[in-house]
Amino acid sequence: MESFKVNILGCGSATPSLRHLQSCQVVDFRDSLMMIDCGEGSQLELRRRKLKFTRLTHIFISHIHGDHCLGLPGLLSTLSLHGREGGVKVYMLKDGIKLLKPVVEYLCQRCSYDLEFIEIPPKGGVLLDTNALTVEAFPLYHRVPCVGFIFREKEKLRHINGEMVKFYDVPVRLIPDIKAGADLVLPDGRIIDNSILTTPATPSSSYAYCSDTMFDTRVAEAVKGVDTIYHEATYLSDLAQSAHERGHSTAAEAAQIAKLAGAKRLIIGHYSKRYIDFTPLLEEARAIFPNTIAADEGLVVDLHTAL
Amino acid sequence: MESFKVNILGCGSATPSLRHLQSCQVVDFRDSLMMIDCGEGSQLELRRRKLKFTRLTHIFISHIHGDHCLGLPGLLSTLSLHGREGGVKVYMLKDGIKLLKPVVEYLCQRCSYDLEFIEIPPKGGVLLDTNALTVEAFPLYHRVPCVGFIFREKEKLRHINGEMVKFYDVPVRLIPDIKAGADLVLPDGRIIDNSILTTPATPSSSYAYCSDTMFDTRVAEAVKGVDTIYHEATYLSDLAQSAHERGHSTAAEAAQIAKLAGAKRLIIGHYSKRYIDFTPLLEEARAIFPNTIAADEGLVVDLHTAL
Repeated sequence: MESFKVNILGCGSATPSLRHLQSCQVVDFRDSLMMIDCGEGSQLELRRRKLKFTRLTHIFISHIHGDHCLGLPGLLSTLSLHGREGGVKVYMLKDGIKLLKPVVEYLCQRCSYDLEFIEIPPKGGVLLDTNALTVEAFPLYHRVPCVGFIFREKEKLRHINGEMVKFYDVPVRLIPDIKAGADLVLPDGRIIDNSILTTPATPSSSYAYCSDTMFDTRVAEAVKGVDTIYHEATYLSDLAQSAHERGHSTAAEAAQIAKLAGAKRLIIGHYSKRYIDFTPLLEEARAIFPNTIAADEGLVVDLHTAL
Repeated sequence: MESFKVNILGCGSATPSLRHLQSCQVVDFRDSLMMIDCGEGSQLELRRRKLKFTRLTHIFISHIHGDHCLGLPGLLSTLSLHGREGGVKVYMLKDGIKLLKPVVEYLCQRCSYDLEFIEIPPKGGVLLDTNALTVEAFPLYHRVPCVGFIFREKEKLRHINGEMVKFYDVPVRLIPDIKAGADLVLPDGRIIDNSILTTPATPSSSYAYCSDTMFDTRVAEAVKGVDTIYHEATYLSDLAQSAHERGHSTAAEAAQIAKLAGAKRLIIGHYSKRYIDFTPLLEEARAIFPNTIAADEGLVVDLHTAL
């Protein structure tokens, strides 16, 4: 099965600590690596996790706080120093482009690859639409403009039933159509139903990134039906007031969003540095949404298996 | 004796690697920490080395290549998130201020401390002149405008000879003058020479940072008489041509500068990532300048003991 995984490179908040790095994730989708947020030091983590620079094609930045974007100039500069070719697209809100593009342009004056900055509309929308995947932005509710991202695999092709295809001596040129659901018309005019020739396609999976945001049911609406949701859980519930004031969520609130959205799995992260151990955060979330896992540096989650 | 040490936080070049981090050093001078260059991730290394944010008062940036300055916005932003008070002065060439000040201002909109950017003249000059220390910038010869820095302790006070001071019953109020070299006039008019009352002051030490630069005898002139010199040694001599083309030095060239300058000790660093082990670089330098040591992350060099 082709890959659809998320690598957690950093899941701390605000200031980096010796326990957790700043926000960075990498969605590994087939041939591409797509980065979500790029805190300081993310380029080194890519290397540590053996995620090849040459496979990195898209970078999505949720908002312009240092812990989500300050690794970007260094990473983009390093790609050029490595003589990376091809293209890299960076998606950011307007302010981020205004702020960081000059830094990148100054440092990569003879950029070896095709670097494109693409503005994310504050209201979100589809950012990427390939034959296999869409990436969509939607508003989050933080102290500054901020968006989340949904990665959705498109509907996949059905699996060929090798024995039946052999039995009916199906010409190779017809296989793509049959995978796509077509029936087979035999030379004598008989019609063989597609369900005899194929088995159902592997279900398509989806992943949503919701960080940073305060608790807001509109987030649950936006990610409704998504299989795996990453939602920030900066604090425990005893600090719900601080969470709200700072535009963040508690672990319980993250779990409520997952429940409201009908998710299959929740990943919590963006822990305040006050929590050396994330177990209490995990327990708080699991009391509301049992299929919760805790992000940690180095964690790789296979997005095909949400249950 | 009061501290005058340099902490090596990063001594790699260009792109960070799992072996060496990007350029960053911290001079620990009495109550202050003074940072030289600030590659990506330096704030985390400060924490790892237990160098307190509250003691950091000055940051000197040699030039505007990513590996020497991209940790700055994150560090300055973190100081504010920590509610750091007092003042921090950042010394940079004009281009750097133009490029990075807007980023810092955007991220620290309600900065908790007094942050001042000070432009380094391209020709260098004295940047800081306290009662105990001067810091001076001087030109280096790299692909872009670049300066080195010299930290010089000022002449120190002589040590009181306790027995003699007691013998002559010297009033406490006269001690500062005597430490500064004054003779003692007794009530009966006799003059006691200062050399009887004191022993010589501890010698003052000095430290120069020369990175990045190609080999140039003007660098040796600028750092003449400095006790400890940190000089970049990006390559071995077999790559002298590349070094020259890229505005860098070989280990042998670093050693020649130390020799020409009459230094007591050389620290080499800024290693190309091709060298996993710096031993060959160290051997090459030592063949010319025996008292050479190799920088490494975590190394702390006491600048009072250059021999």
